[in-house]
Amino acid sequence: MKPVKFTIDKKISGGLGRAGTIITPHGALETPVFIVVGTKGSVKSLTTEQVLGLGGQSVLANTYHLYLEPGDELVKNSGGLGKFMNWEGPTFTDSGGFQVFSLGAAMGKSVGKIATGEEIAEYTDEGNFGGKLAQIDEEGVTFRSFMNGSEHRFTPERSMEIQQNLGADIIFAFDECTSPMAPKEYQMQAMERTHRWAKRCLESHSKIDQALFGVIQGGRFEDLRKESAKVLAGLEVNGKTFDGFGIGGSFVKEDMATAVRWVNEILPEDKPRHLLGVGEPEDLFLGVENGCDTFDCVAPTRQGRNGNFYTNEGRIIIQNSKFREDLSPVEKDCGCYACKNFSKAYIAHLFRAKEMLGPTLGSIHNLYFIVNLVKKIRQSILDGNFPQFKEEFLGKYR
Amino acid sequence: MKPVKFTIDKKISGGLGRAGTIITPHGALETPVFIVVGTKGSVKSLTTEQVLGLGGQSVLANTYHLYLEPGDELVKNSGGLGKFMNWEGPTFTDSGGFQVFSLGAAMGKSVGKIATGEEIAEYTDEGNFGGKLAQIDEEGVTFRSFMNGSEHRFTPERSMEIQQNLGADIIFAFDECTSPMAPKEYQMQAMERTHRWAKRCLESHSKIDQALFGVIQGGRFEDLRKESAKVLAGLEVNGKTFDGFGIGGSFVKEDMATAVRWVNEILPEDKPRHLLGVGEPEDLFLGVENGCDTFDCVAPTRQGRNGNFYTNEGRIIIQNSKFREDLSPVEKDCGCYACKNFSKAYIAHLFRAKEMLGPTLGSIHNLYFIVNLVKKIRQSILDGNFPQFKEEFLGKYR
Repeated sequence: MKPVKFTIDKKISGGLGRAGTIITPHGALETPVFIVVGTKGSVKSLTTEQVLGLGGQSVLANTYHLYLEPGDELVKNSGGLGKFMNWEGPTFTDSGGFQVFSLGAAMGKSVGKIATGEEIAEYTDEGNFGGKLAQIDEEGVTFRSFMNGSEHRFTPERSMEIQQNLGADIIFAFDECTSPMAPKEYQMQAMERTHRWAKRCLESHSKIDQALFGVIQGGRFEDLRKESAKVLAGLEVNGKTFDGFGIGGSFVKEDMATAVRWVNEILPEDKPRHLLGVGEPEDLFLGVENGCDTFDCVAPTRQGRNGNFYTNEGRIIIQNSKFREDLSPVEKDCGCYACKNFSKAYIAHLFRAKEMLGPTLGSIHNLYFIVNLVKKIRQSILDGNFPQFKEEFLGKYR
Repeated sequence: MKPVKFTIDKKISGGLGRAGTIITPHGALETPVFIVVGTKGSVKSLTTEQVLGLGGQSVLANTYHLYLEPGDELVKNSGGLGKFMNWEGPTFTDSGGFQVFSLGAAMGKSVGKIATGEEIAEYTDEGNFGGKLAQIDEEGVTFRSFMNGSEHRFTPERSMEIQQNLGADIIFAFDECTSPMAPKEYQMQAMERTHRWAKRCLESHSKIDQALFGVIQGGRFEDLRKESAKVLAGLEVNGKTFDGFGIGGSFVKEDMATAVRWVNEILPEDKPRHLLGVGEPEDLFLGVENGCDTFDCVAPTRQGRNGNFYTNEGRIIIQNSKFREDLSPVEKDCGCYACKNFSKAYIAHLFRAKEMLGPTLGSIHNLYFIVNLVKKIRQSILDGNFPQFKEEFLGKYR
């Protein structure tokens, strides 16, 4: 019995993209699907009722954050992540690898999965994002808490133990996440270590109703990405293989689609593929087109909290003075709670008045926008008109 | 045609208290009722859907705040306060009097309606809370914005104009709110000015589907409170009288019930009475018992945002370490969204992790608690057992 079952419903003609269904112990995911991020066991500023209301199918939380607060034992004692946060649908946790390196090194800075040139420049010199607050060895990583500086250690085995306690339906192997601009030599070493850690994850993971995904690394190097896909796709320990795959690492924006294609041409077609930390509209089209099934990203809620609203014509900044007296909704035909009930003028007022309802409405709208965009992408695959839908959408979206 | 119609459904035997119904242009209020505060046109951290879900019947917003941001003209152009904030039920606005004086003088400090001894001590010397940022004359008040220090002027006529633009169902006459410890001489002068302003409010108010309530002042002095009630109850301008009354002023806690009784023994029985800014459980019982019908207070949401949750045994601080692993709800038999779906341990985690959902759940729970407490008080009046219910509730509530 596999913890998750994946079936392909329809493929994009002549390409890697597909629409499918992942059956998890907590229900089905119709892919491609955007997984809503609830880093600390809460989708920021939203109740689970609101997440359901906007069409969210699944939530992804963070091993690193939940381990530090409130602790994985408490989550386990609460009946697992879903029960703890009152989410009845499928759940994911990522392995904590990305956070150990990015938060460890970049205390107070936010390092996006798709880095800008400036962000990358800060981390060019050394391999693991400067490594200031995370020390890596063959066994694992010692790091300091972003909350209080206390020292902690993650190993592949410990990550599995914590993620089994958190109890999500789909979890990820513990990987080392490198800077996209790290030298190739370092990328290779890190990737090979990630492969050895992947094997240890497969060995130590024992929760049978929980799917374990391997994480592909290799940066922007074709040979490394392909090798990583080949090694992890073929990895077998006592008859056990990965139930699916995550595609990890920070990407330089232009490289993302290519790197994803290299990998997905090699990964087995019959297992689901998650593109970690990617969720801007253009990137979602590219990710789907190149064979990814599930996505997660903090951008929709983070942008929404800051008053940046997605629309079919691109993002708008609600605090812009031109919206001060605009009595129309953010998006005319949008079905989200914010657009059905409030004007731009009202939402702009909430942001000016520093009312918490502003960030809440921004999060609802943006998540609705992205979740439903991916649903429409799925439908376009089923309808056999993905290329047309992509062209139509991106033609308007600036 | 009166803008609101008030009927008494049942009285507390031998006392001033009563259960009644106020019919407004936007629906009925079953009294006694707690009016949910949405100062800036938003019940802090909640959607209007959530306010409805917890049993909220009506929302009270603030003239002073909405005048400054986003401006009353915009609210008018949006179709009025209810439409602007997507609240279909009855709405109130207070006159801005309290805020002009308290926020004007006490920039950055919060002056509660029921002041503590220390708060009062700061304002003992002068009449109108020190008057540093509010200058009063016979015509009106010049004050500085709490937002940016810009200068503004309110007169009774201007307050009516703004409140007519905001368009709530029930509005209040513009009054001068004095410190509860101001000398009697000043209290008397302020009260008499408030009476002259009340007459000007009646004269200038012209919106026929909007009820205008006079505001009784007089501090803690029996003769002044009684005079204020007598004068405003009898005030008639061109055949027009007040549709109801607000009882205003900051109270010293011990004096509240007495001052309310003095007033309500004089006010006409057939008009509704609002106790401004009062909403702690004990005070609600005292207010109802002494003849008040409607109440508003920021305490439930403010307390909830800070992690202080009402329970039948008194308030608890959710961040207290004893709740860290407590998997039971805040209140066992509570029907609110927070208690039905989340444990104390989870809510405590949200506050520790600084997740916005924490303050949201705190606001939902506390508003549910207070709104439903007043509903139960109403029911106890209808059932003829108010004294027993009061004793039972306050016996447990510490």
